[in-house]
Amino acid sequence: MYLEIDFNSDEAIYQQLCEQIIMGIATSRLTDGEVLPSVRQLADDIGINMHTVNKAYTILKQEGFVKIDRRRGAIVSVDADKQRAIASVKKDMQSVLAEAICRDLSRSDIHELVDQILDEFGTLVS
Amino acid sequence: MYLEIDFNSDEAIYQQLCEQIIMGIATSRLTDGEVLPSVRQLADDIGINMHTVNKAYTILKQEGFVKIDRRRGAIVSVDADKQRAIASVKKDMQSVLAEAICRDLSRSDIHELVDQILDEFGTLVS
Repeated sequence: MYLEIDFNSDEAIYQQLCEQIIMGIATSRLTDGEVLPSVRQLADDIGINMHTVNKAYTILKQEGFVKIDRRRGAIVSVDADKQRAIASVKKDMQSVLAEAICRDLSRSDIHELVDQILDEFGTLVS
Repeated sequence: MYLEIDFNSDEAIYQQLCEQIIMGIATSRLTDGEVLPSVRQLADDIGINMHTVNKAYTILKQEGFVKIDRRRGAIVSVDADKQRAIASVKKDMQSVLAEAICRDLSRSDIHELVDQILDEFGTLVS
């Protein structure tokens, strides 16, 4: 699994980990049922603390992106509850749109940006 | 200034502070040139450490939402550079859209959600 962590970022490492894994699922580089690296292995690979990896996996579990199997570890498994999905996305989308409005992007600028990013993802986005 | 901080959230307090202030600007509750509470006052009001408020103000400054005046403190002042604006929004939007795709929202679900949130902001969104 390829992960890109920016150690100079303001964003906490565990958050970057979560985002990269979610991005991996969105772009089909990670698929349902795939086993993620063990906490120890990922911590070693990236050169970070095991607690940080653990925190990321715990959050991904809480948010319904992975399941934790006692023997196999963290497994990609996306929660299919549509209402919960929309509620969760809405909260994060509000923050981004607030930033967009502050920065004087118009409604059509925003829709254009959405399409551009979805096209870049280039996966099964219908 | 009304701020709502969730002490049980996974999200760091300084990030919640940043988001709420950005949301305040987006919905015109905070306007350009407005002086934010002093670090000490805001820390007291919310019952958090002064370092946390400082960190939020520093990030808001780096991201071009406030200026720091030596005498008056933090002042709302949004950076008007459109290219920088789009680049900044794009990065955050990518994360949210990755989540949306993982959660099986379609392209039209996403555009609908964007419009719904912009309507709820109900401000000068053109």
